[in-house]
Order: sequence, then C-alpha cells, then structure tokens
Amino acid sequence: MTPPAGADGRDRPGEFEIIGEIFAPLAADAPGAWGLKDDAALFHPSAGFETVLTVDAMVAGVHFLPDDPPESIAKKLLRVNLSDLAAKGAVPRGYLLVTAFPPDIDIGWIRRFAEGLAADQARYGVSLWGGDTVKTPGPLTLSLTAIGEVPQGRIVRRGGAEAGDDLYVTGTLGDAALGLAVLKGELPGLADEHAAFLVSRYREPEPRTALGPALPGLAHAALDVSDGLMADLGHLCSASGVGARVEFHRLPLSPAAETALRLKPELRGLPAGGGDDYEILFAAAPGDAARVAAAAAQAGVEAVRIGTLLPAGKGVAAVDEAGREIPLKQLGYRHF
Amino acid sequence: MTPPAGADGRDRPGEFEIIGEIFAPLAADAPGAWGLKDDAALFHPSAGFETVLTVDAMVAGVHFLPDDPPESIAKKLLRVNLSDLAAKGAVPRGYLLVTAFPPDIDIGWIRRFAEGLAADQARYGVSLWGGDTVKTPGPLTLSLTAIGEVPQGRIVRRGGAEAGDDLYVTGTLGDAALGLAVLKGELPGLADEHAAFLVSRYREPEPRTALGPALPGLAHAALDVSDGLMADLGHLCSASGVGARVEFHRLPLSPAAETALRLKPELRGLPAGGGDDYEILFAAAPGDAARVAAAAAQAGVEAVRIGTLLPAGKGVAAVDEAGREIPLKQLGYRHF
Repeated sequence: MTPPAGADGRDRPGEFEIIGEIFAPLAADAPGAWGLKDDAALFHPSAGFETVLTVDAMVAGVHFLPDDPPESIAKKLLRVNLSDLAAKGAVPRGYLLVTAFPPDIDIGWIRRFAEGLAADQARYGVSLWGGDTVKTPGPLTLSLTAIGEVPQGRIVRRGGAEAGDDLYVTGTLGDAALGLAVLKGELPGLADEHAAFLVSRYREPEPRTALGPALPGLAHAALDVSDGLMADLGHLCSASGVGARVEFHRLPLSPAAETALRLKPELRGLPAGGGDDYEILFAAAPGDAARVAAAAAQAGVEAVRIGTLLPAGKGVAAVDEAGREIPLKQLGYRHF
Repeated sequence: MTPPAGADGRDRPGEFEIIGEIFAPLAADAPGAWGLKDDAALFHPSAGFETVLTVDAMVAGVHFLPDDPPESIAKKLLRVNLSDLAAKGAVPRGYLLVTAFPPDIDIGWIRRFAEGLAADQARYGVSLWGGDTVKTPGPLTLSLTAIGEVPQGRIVRRGGAEAGDDLYVTGTLGDAALGLAVLKGELPGLADEHAAFLVSRYREPEPRTALGPALPGLAHAALDVSDGLMADLGHLCSASGVGARVEFHRLPLSPAAETALRLKPELRGLPAGGGDDYEILFAAAPGDAARVAAAAAQAGVEAVRIGTLLPAGKGVAAVDEAGREIPLKQLGYRHF
C-alpha cells in the first residue's frame, strides 16, 4: 500500500487518500456503500421495519478535549448517535461520517481515529456508508449521521408516558461528568482505578443498544441522558404532558462515583445534573416491572426505578429519602 | 413570539431557541420529524422504493465566502446534496442539518439562513427532519444529510457505463467557477447582468431534481459535476471501466460564460476543469438519444451530448474540433 501523501508529495493527506485508504475499509461490509466510491448510499430496511435517522456533531475543545485519544473521540462520536437510536427502540445499521480536519492534522491521528471506528463497528454491528471529508482552518469538527431500523409503527417517542408510570434509568449516572472533573484535575485524591473508570465513561460512553430493541411495547416513552438527568426528564415530561418525582437516593451510582462524591461532596449534584452519561431514561407501566427486569437482564444492563410520573401540573422534582424536595438549583445543566 | 435570547438574557441565541423558534417551523410538514422535539427522525420510503442518503459539509472561507448572503449559503448547502440525489435517480424527501455556529453569530444571520432553507423546501418538496446545533470557536461549519428515495434496484451508479455510450451533461458548464472569479475581482470588465448570473450560479447552483427520476432505466451511469467535468468524468470512467473522449467545443456554455471567456481567454479551461457546477454528467446508449431529449424536455433542462465513451485503456481525453487532443494540464481541479 502506498503511504498517503498530498498532491504536493508531503505527508499531509488529501481527501482522496483519506477516503480511499483509511475510510473505505470501514465500508467494506456494506453493500449499499459501494466502497465509498459513489455519491450516495442505499438502504433498504428489513421487511416490516422503517428507517430511523439521527445526527450529532462534536467540536474539539467544546465536546471533547483536543488531547483525548483519537480512538476515543471516534467511539464517542459514534456512540452518542447509537445511544439516540437505542432510546428510540431502533437497531443500528450504518452511519455517514463528516470530518473537517484542520491543516495540521496528522495522518497517524486519522488512522487511529479510523481504528476506533473499526473497533466499534465490530462491537455494534454497523458500518460506514458514506460521508464527506473537508478541510477547516478551525478546530477539528466531526458529525455523524446514524441510521437504524425499528419495527414499523413501534418507535419509542419522548411523548407517551402517563401519570403513574414508573421511571427507570439504565446503568449509572454522573460518571461522565465526574470523569470530566478528573480530566480537569478537580479530583486529585481519587484512586487511579476509579479515576480511570470515570474518564472512560466520559470518553467512551456505553450506548444501550442491546436494550433498545426491547423498548417498543414496553417503554411508554424514552430518551437518552445527554443533557443531564433532570434536563432530559424535563424533555420527556414536557413531551408527554406529565410531571415527575425522582427519588434522589435511588439514582444508581458506580463505586467510582460513590468514592468520588465522598471525596468531594460539592459535586453531589452531578448524577442528576451532569450530562454525557448516555444512559436510557424511560417510563413503563407499574405492572410491567417484571418485564422491565427481564428485558434488562437479557440485555446485560441494569435498569433501576428512580421515580414516578405524576399528572401534569405537578412539575419535575427530586426528593430525598424523607420525601422532602431538593432544590433543583445546581442540578441543572445547560448546553450551548 | 418572544425574541430569542440566551440564558444570560443577551441577544445571543441558545441552542433551544435556535431549534425551537427558527428551525422547528422548517419541520412542520414532516410527520417523522415531530417538530424537532425528539431524538431521531422516522422515514418510511414509498412502496417499491428504497432510501438513498448523502451528506456534504461546507466551511466558511473554504466552501463559501464568509460574506455570501446567508440565504445563498443555506441554498447551496441543501442543493449540493439534492444534486447528488438527482444524479442517482432519487427523489429528495428530507434532510438533517448540522450547524456549528461561531460565538459572534447573529440571530438575524440565522433567521436569514432559515429563510433560504424555507424557500428551497418549497421549491424542491423537502423538509427538515432533524439535526444538531452546536457552538464552535472556529468558522461557521455546516453539514447536511439529504434523504431521498429511488425505485428499488434502480439506483443509477457511477459504474455501469459502456464503451460506445454517448456522454451527456445538463445545463451549462463553467458558470460557477467564473462566478467565483467575478467575486474575486478577476473579471472587472464583465457586464453587470453577466456577472450577476455567474455569481448566482456559484452561490445557488440548480440541482437537476426534475431530471433525476428519469435517469433510472435511461442513464447507464451518472454523477454530478462538483469537482469539475474532467475530474468527475474520470470518476465515472474509473468506476465503469471505460475511457472517454470529450469534444471540447461541444461543452455547453451560458451567454455569460461565453462573454467572460472572450474577455479573459486564459480562463477557458474552467468549463472543463472548474468545479461547483452541479450539473448531471451521464452516459446513455446511442440508440436512446431521442429518449434523453424527451426526458430533458420534460424536466425543463437541456442535456447535450459532449462526447463518447471508449473501451478501457483509451484514457480520458478532451479533443478540439479537428480531433486533436487538448492537454489536460490546466483543466484539472483538485479539492482539499
């Protein structure tokens, strides 16, 4: 294989080299991607399914740290989108990738970025279907359109939850925000293994793709926790026309998060207010608790009940073990 | 309507204001977009059709001039993608939009950008299905995923052309590159109406969406002219395993381009080498000339025969009226 080189012969990759040598292998498994050698991709959902599409962008210095490992940046970019598909009950199939590379981008960086994608393609059963590679005088900017499929008429919406529903969340909360705190040097006393776990949760969130397809017919409403639990719960309640009461002491915490919060109690709002966890928040009928538990067990993920949905007008509140409302100040988190 | 304001009360728009007040109306016609209030969009192609996807990105200062009108930037972003769909024989249906706005972006700029999209949505019968709005410390960066549908198994590829096929191109060539020359002050003596026409072709290319759906079953291969005629012909020939001879004097020129090239003959390579025309280049059987003419007339666009495809190994060449090969040097154009 010829080493990629720009038109001027220097080791600065050109668009065609990047696509042909680094990205095209990621499309090898996708018949409708034609080796990235055509102008568009073709997708035909399975019989009885329809197409679900979502897109998310990430900018260096805004959505990830410029010195994050390229493999992790690639994985996070893909996973935040797979998380959206999972929350809608969809099975991921493929993705389109847009990269805007700054002039000083290194070919080795791009190769490691592609290795991260390759690893996740195998992990989640998706492939690259197309994209665009451009240059930018600004920071590295990435966007990814993920395409999945869901049984026809069964997509899980944000709306649809009912007063009286149980409220569930998968996995653990606050890890990503605490991981970012670790990277910012705000948790210096934390044991290495806990710090490493939290950072990995920030850099490489785990989309709940195994649980997603179990949600249609079980979850009345769902979305993934990207803005922060309380903010995203607000979205779900607003779309569903309900209120909610979250039992703060039920929020699932990892051992690393427990340790970090003991070390620095002023961060205790992060599990409810921090973003980037990419767990699924969903509502289900109280009578379906056993079905929820079975689906979660089948998917190899925990789903814990953290509260209850209330009639409209009751607002969205977090309460402590004694049922006293916890002020939401400090728990909110606003993007952009 | 409350004027959009950031969380700090200043007239700097926040993500939710931009989406809710400026972009959501663009999604009003699309049932699967749910007013941009969910995490993903849903698409079900018409019976007997399959989904076609394409994405293109544009960066201020790279793909458009920072002081181009926001309406034009929006239209170009949408149209370059609709052009890809048309060249594949697909009917456009909807799109996902990613905007990375610099901190000094003005709410008025975003409103005008959305007005450009609204005008083109009506013109091309598409609507906004979803997207992402982020901030960037760098230049305005945009990407758009267009979704269309094509009759099952009938998509038009780059490959598939045969030696002996006639080679056609729609519209006129070189206008966009000459329009850029006008904007750069390189054609000072050109009459205003010609200058305005060329600039409009650069800023607001016309995707051949009316012709696109006529291509399946007629064009053996097709793609849109974005990199430049000779470069894109090279892609078609490479994918089809054929050579080509383009009759340079047959390249269709607009009156404005004719005038500009008389004024500045050193730009005469632009119709063959300049990019950004977004016309469709396609190959069809010689016996189908009447069908091509009828399809073009039906679509309200000219499609002229500019050459012939040759057996593999014959290369890709442009010849003059006497059949003498014209050196391709100066006709090439390389992106990135």
